[in-house]
Amino acid sequence: MRRMALRTAAAVSDTRAAVIGAAVRSASITGLEGLTIGTLADALEMRKSGLFGLFGSKQELQIATLEAGTALFLREVWAPVAGLEPGRERLLALCDRWLELFEGDQLPGGCLMTTAIVEFDARPGPVRTAVADVMQLWHELLAHEVRTAVDAGQLPAKTEPVDVAFQLNALASAASTSYHLTGKRDGLDQARRIMAALLSTADTSEGVRIPPVG
Amino acid sequence: MRRMALRTAAAVSDTRAAVIGAAVRSASITGLEGLTIGTLADALEMRKSGLFGLFGSKQELQIATLEAGTALFLREVWAPVAGLEPGRERLLALCDRWLELFEGDQLPGGCLMTTAIVEFDARPGPVRTAVADVMQLWHELLAHEVRTAVDAGQLPAKTEPVDVAFQLNALASAASTSYHLTGKRDGLDQARRIMAALLSTADTSEGVRIPPVG
Repeated sequence: MRRMALRTAAAVSDTRAAVIGAAVRSASITGLEGLTIGTLADALEMRKSGLFGLFGSKQELQIATLEAGTALFLREVWAPVAGLEPGRERLLALCDRWLELFEGDQLPGGCLMTTAIVEFDARPGPVRTAVADVMQLWHELLAHEVRTAVDAGQLPAKTEPVDVAFQLNALASAASTSYHLTGKRDGLDQARRIMAALLSTADTSEGVRIPPVG
Repeated sequence: MRRMALRTAAAVSDTRAAVIGAAVRSASITGLEGLTIGTLADALEMRKSGLFGLFGSKQELQIATLEAGTALFLREVWAPVAGLEPGRERLLALCDRWLELFEGDQLPGGCLMTTAIVEFDARPGPVRTAVADVMQLWHELLAHEVRTAVDAGQLPAKTEPVDVAFQLNALASAASTSYHLTGKRDGLDQARRIMAALLSTADTSEGVRIPPVG
C-alpha cells in the first residue's frame, strides 16, 4: 500500500511539474490570466480530467507558474554568470544571457515577468505581491552588482546604482516586447547597444577611482 | 420617422462613446482581454442588454478601445506641447506630460499601450497589427524630435535618435508599471531623472554643433 501511495504521489508530482512547464510557456504568450486547464491539457495532450485537482485554484496555478518562471530565469540568466568575478564584466555577461533568453524557445511569447507585472500591477492580491517581491529582489541584485562595479572603479563614481538597475530592467522588457511585436531583432540589438553604453567605462571624465584596498 | 431615426442613432453613438470611455479605464487595469460586456455594464450602471450589439465582436471593442486610448494619449501628452518649438525643450515637456498621465485618474491601471503590447505582442491578428502600427508611428515621432534637437545643436552630435526614442519608451513603460506595482512614486521620479539626463546637453565633449543655416 505504501509503495502504491508513493508511486501515486510521484506521478502526481511529475504531472504537476509538466503542467507548470507548459504553463510557463503558455503564460509567456497569453499571460497568467490566459491560463486555463483546457489549453494546458491541449498543450500536454492530456485529458482535462487528469489536470483537475492538481491546483486548488487558478491563483495557485498562477503563483506556481510565476515561481517556475523565476527559477527558469535564474537558471538561464543568473546561474551561468554567478561564478564570474562580481562587477562590470559579470553585469555585461548577465545582460547578454538576459536578452538571449527572450530570443529562445523557452519563453515563446517573451518575458514572463513583464507580462505578469502588466497584468497584476493594478490588481492587489497574492499574485501582485509575489510579482512585487521578485522584482524588488531583482532590482536589489542588479543595483548591488552596479555598486560593486563602481566601488571597484569599473564604472564612473557618479553612477547611480538604482537608476542603472531601473534602466537595465526597462530596456530588457522593452526589447522583449519589441522583438515579439515587430518580429524583428532591432529592439534586442538596440537594448544590447544601450546596455553596453550604460555600463561603459568611457565617461570617467571626473577621474578614475582607486579601488578600495583590503 | 427620420427625426426618430436620427435620435436613435445619436443615442447609440453616445452609448458607444460612454462604453469605450469605460473600456479604456477598465483595460488599463485588467487589459484588453479582460474587457467584458458584464464589467463594462457594471462600470456604467447599465444593463448588459443595452450594450449588446454595439460592437460586432470582442476584437472590434478591443480595437475601438485602443483607438480611444491613443486619442487620449495624443490629447493629454502631445497636444499640450505641440505648439512649442520643436526640439529638446518640447521633448522634455512631452516627457513630463507622459509621466503625469500615468499618475492621473484617466488611466487607473497605468499605460494602456504597454498593457496592449504585452497582451498581444506574441498573438498575430488585427489587434497586434493595430498596436504595432501605433507604436511604430510613436517611435518615429520621438526619433524625429530627437533628430530635430540634434540638428539644432541642442543635443550632442553623436546622439542616436532611434536609440533615445527606444529608451524614452522603455522608461515610460517601466515607470508606469513600477508606480502601480509598488504603489510608490520612486519609479516615476527615476524615469523623469533618467529622461532628463538622456536629453541633457552636458555631454558635448565633441564640441557644440553649429545649427544649419536657412
